[in-house]
Amino acid sequence: MNTETSTSSRRTTYTPDSLLEVAVAVFNDRGYDGTSMEDLARAAGITKSSIYHHVKGKEELLTRGVNRALDALNASLDALDTLEPLPDAGELDRVEQAVFRAVQILVEELPYVTLLLRVRGNTEAERAAQDRRREIDRRLAGFVERAAAAGVLRTDLDPHLASRLVFGMVNSVVEWYRPGPGRWSADDVASAVTHLVFDGLRRR
Amino acid sequence: MNTETSTSSRRTTYTPDSLLEVAVAVFNDRGYDGTSMEDLARAAGITKSSIYHHVKGKEELLTRGVNRALDALNASLDALDTLEPLPDAGELDRVEQAVFRAVQILVEELPYVTLLLRVRGNTEAERAAQDRRREIDRRLAGFVERAAAAGVLRTDLDPHLASRLVFGMVNSVVEWYRPGPGRWSADDVASAVTHLVFDGLRRR
Repeated sequence: MNTETSTSSRRTTYTPDSLLEVAVAVFNDRGYDGTSMEDLARAAGITKSSIYHHVKGKEELLTRGVNRALDALNASLDALDTLEPLPDAGELDRVEQAVFRAVQILVEELPYVTLLLRVRGNTEAERAAQDRRREIDRRLAGFVERAAAAGVLRTDLDPHLASRLVFGMVNSVVEWYRPGPGRWSADDVASAVTHLVFDGLRRR
Repeated sequence: MNTETSTSSRRTTYTPDSLLEVAVAVFNDRGYDGTSMEDLARAAGITKSSIYHHVKGKEELLTRGVNRALDALNASLDALDTLEPLPDAGELDRVEQAVFRAVQILVEELPYVTLLLRVRGNTEAERAAQDRRREIDRRLAGFVERAAAAGVLRTDLDPHLASRLVFGMVNSVVEWYRPGPGRWSADDVASAVTHLVFDGLRRR
């Protein structure tokens, strides 16, 4: 397996953010469980003791990496939560904005969201990340349920199942999306997901 | 990590299918790369040499496991392919049936589809599985493109992007679906996915 990552540009000084970027790329490449501090030092081109100068260990890098995704997602939900109470159509708009913003964050923070979605729960730091992720899933499902209660969603879909499927589609973007010139932008993908989810593929 | 799986009921004789079931459960629990023949023997409650009596090695178990999912998916596409040429609305029906059937197969063959979707490409057997999976993705995308060409899909969605998203939603079901009494059935989930994908969440 290739242990070098495209982001490891072998520099000798790191900021907390640039070291985190290298670490998250290695975690996503090798798996968090399969990554040693040795692997991180090699990818960063510095010694293990230089890394310990920045962080206590790889758990701290995991926590900081997933928090970057989690904090962005929570901030977007906080912004939408202040809008209530909403007239009925507003409940649909809120779900639509939550979906659109979730896709944008996923694309903008791709390595950090990828790390979050792959966390397996073998250590305390991973379980804490999973708990925070489940809390976000609950907040998103809550928006869908309020829209269902407001009568603006079709009634033949279980809101809980619909919510699972919609955010399954959102999260699936990490499996194939790669940024770059001439590729779909964050807004292209976010628009496509919201159009598909709210109005479907069928021509009317 | 718990290396026992819920399917390992410690028996001393195995059929090819029952041994495959145990092996696939262990692969999904520990990851294919992280599973040794020792792990498989322990989970099956038999010796390594008893396993070698059935198969040449773990690559053969991987190939047989993913082929169970791939063969079912290909058979469903073959059945739909014989229907062409179709009148325009038939092209939409074909995509709808392909999506419905893909979800059914995913639920019916959950451990085998899970294994297929997690394959990482580190060995020849894994790369062969990825190649066969990509061929199925191409066939599915081809159905979506033919429906777009027939004018039965909305024109503001790139068919290629739509196809990625729809099958992203389908595949995301492996992340949370668990069978059991009182749970959603394969048909419940397949109906929900097709309704959502073709007509959207919005009440009309």
